[in-house]
Amino acid sequence: MRKTFEQLFDALSDHARDVSFHVQFWDGVKKSYGAGEPQFILTMTTKQAAEHVLESGSLGFGEEYMAGGIQVEGDFTQLLRFGADNAFLNLPIGLKAKLAIKHLRQASLNTLSRSTKHVAHHYDRGNDFYKLWLDDSMAYSCAYFRYENDTLEQAQQQKYEHICRKLQLKAGETLIDIGCGWGGMLIYAAKHYGVRGVGCTLSKEQVEYAVDLVKRQGLSKEISIVFEDYRKIEGTFDKFVSIGMFEHVGKQFIPTFMEKVKSILNPGGIGLLHTIGQELPVPGDPWTLKYIFPGGYIPTLDEIVRSMCEAKLIPTDIENLRLHYARTVEEWIARFEVQAKKVEAMYDASFVRLWRMFLNGCVANFRYGDMRLYHVLFTKGLNNTMPLTREHLYR
Amino acid sequence: MRKTFEQLFDALSDHARDVSFHVQFWDGVKKSYGAGEPQFILTMTTKQAAEHVLESGSLGFGEEYMAGGIQVEGDFTQLLRFGADNAFLNLPIGLKAKLAIKHLRQASLNTLSRSTKHVAHHYDRGNDFYKLWLDDSMAYSCAYFRYENDTLEQAQQQKYEHICRKLQLKAGETLIDIGCGWGGMLIYAAKHYGVRGVGCTLSKEQVEYAVDLVKRQGLSKEISIVFEDYRKIEGTFDKFVSIGMFEHVGKQFIPTFMEKVKSILNPGGIGLLHTIGQELPVPGDPWTLKYIFPGGYIPTLDEIVRSMCEAKLIPTDIENLRLHYARTVEEWIARFEVQAKKVEAMYDASFVRLWRMFLNGCVANFRYGDMRLYHVLFTKGLNNTMPLTREHLYR
Repeated sequence: MRKTFEQLFDALSDHARDVSFHVQFWDGVKKSYGAGEPQFILTMTTKQAAEHVLESGSLGFGEEYMAGGIQVEGDFTQLLRFGADNAFLNLPIGLKAKLAIKHLRQASLNTLSRSTKHVAHHYDRGNDFYKLWLDDSMAYSCAYFRYENDTLEQAQQQKYEHICRKLQLKAGETLIDIGCGWGGMLIYAAKHYGVRGVGCTLSKEQVEYAVDLVKRQGLSKEISIVFEDYRKIEGTFDKFVSIGMFEHVGKQFIPTFMEKVKSILNPGGIGLLHTIGQELPVPGDPWTLKYIFPGGYIPTLDEIVRSMCEAKLIPTDIENLRLHYARTVEEWIARFEVQAKKVEAMYDASFVRLWRMFLNGCVANFRYGDMRLYHVLFTKGLNNTMPLTREHLYR
Repeated sequence: MRKTFEQLFDALSDHARDVSFHVQFWDGVKKSYGAGEPQFILTMTTKQAAEHVLESGSLGFGEEYMAGGIQVEGDFTQLLRFGADNAFLNLPIGLKAKLAIKHLRQASLNTLSRSTKHVAHHYDRGNDFYKLWLDDSMAYSCAYFRYENDTLEQAQQQKYEHICRKLQLKAGETLIDIGCGWGGMLIYAAKHYGVRGVGCTLSKEQVEYAVDLVKRQGLSKEISIVFEDYRKIEGTFDKFVSIGMFEHVGKQFIPTFMEKVKSILNPGGIGLLHTIGQELPVPGDPWTLKYIFPGGYIPTLDEIVRSMCEAKLIPTDIENLRLHYARTVEEWIARFEVQAKKVEAMYDASFVRLWRMFLNGCVANFRYGDMRLYHVLFTKGLNNTMPLTREHLYR
């Protein structure tokens, strides 16, 4: 059993010369890999925990980490990188070691989905939790680091600004925000661009929070926040936005989503879809899909494009912002770690470890793995008044 | 027969209130449609010509126009617009009139393909023809109108500049240009960015022209132009570009093309694919595919994206420049019309009409119809040193 893991770590280390780490085995043996200070220390406290990883895949790895059977000190992202990066999947190592790396891969790929249990579980009682580590506007989505030294707060505001420019918002226009979260996008658009907006979410706690915030900002006339499924939204709008909600739509409802977007946009209207995606379909982990993230689905870019085109929504500009999401999550991790004791007191240590694994898995996957963040700008039918260039985004 | 056409024109005119035109029928009857000065006058000189349109589709329309059985004065684009714009396909008009509009649609959709016979036919003896109406750099592809009052010359230089910025060219880097035409892109990149380039084309006349031009510019050390199929290109390069060549690859060779791109790019290398595309697959006209454009194929956007992703080429930025292509072709038309007498003397009147129809069909399709021009930027595998934003394109 230890031999299998040693073979695995030897191969990983050979392949990733910039990563150094220590491993502490259940029998007291310690090994160093790579040169210099270790970036992380992986401890397998029991043989059972190690077996669980080899035998039960992502489920085993995640459960052991949450339960403390596997411990990680230091830069967790660098460990999860081994599971995220395709380069490690074809290493010439033994079958069992290969299985372990595949499982590590699943663990890191599925962490996003895994989070959903807790998102769903906590959306309606977790505002205090998210406040601990999100920015002031409570944006639980990829920020836009326009300048090198941007703080997370600035980068989230710039995300809103970037989107407003892409949508070419003008005073008096109407904007629909599908999956509006805590209202940050609509409040920015109303304040800075004078639009009237409608946002929908399926979280009661988000509705309460957003309605209250809108009132305190004196924007109750301009913005309504409704507790509603996107399929039930009626009316027509000049502009459309959806940020980090499309991942929850599910593969079979993608055409429904696009048809709904088409039906609520005025002819020539501009829309922006902000969503996690991937290049190639990676099948979801059956356990995760069954118990954690029912109906969730990370779409591929060609799937997004095809479904959009089939609904006569015309893609005009697609931006891949994956490195912004890696950086966003790193900012979240830094804030989260500062608050970890508080989180542990609110929930428990296993909850802290789960979130730690989830967030670090996201960084690993956006930076080294399969996850992307797409901004897909489109118009309903042809719009011949669109600016010829994208220069207006960068003034 | 005349009734069918009157019914058709009534319906079109009802639907397109901004278009006014006159129709002159074979029996002397004249009709006016829309208000104000006519934008074009359509003359059907014989009943046989009209029947040919109703019965033989795009083939009939094109042949009659070329032979003079159908004549068009004024803004041909506005006529071809009826065939390009999806809005006209679902008009509640009689079956025969519907057939006519579908045929008009095919005519306008297939004009690009149609041109290929003449492109193929003339590539090796047509430099004099293209010189008559292309810009100085002989760019036979979409220009980039960065500023409102750009001339075609400026816009083609700016296209090269826009691409160089997207590719982040640096002095000393190597660039491969698949389908290099008359060499404009490579010469710009070598002159302004100090790169070393290789270009390939399957036109002997283009090779001769480009080699001579490279020599006269003193760039023979930096640039080689080879008469070669892209499938036979060997070596590896830092950067890749292909402008207006992908349309000739053919559906079945798209994966071959992408694998070749992958094999000749260094890891992390950046590439730009500049190609005509469409949102939804429009089946090619059997006659055109058989007699005019064997092997040619306008890809859909999702097809481009999927084939790229399957070859582990990572799309980072996609720009839809269709309005630039409409404007480019309008510039070509203006120049072409100035030279029409010369072209007629070089070839014949039917050749002039064919080109006129082709060019106007392009404008109609880029502005009102199904044709797009995509810039798809990608990297070979992940490149984590890419700039976070696209701001560097607009400085």
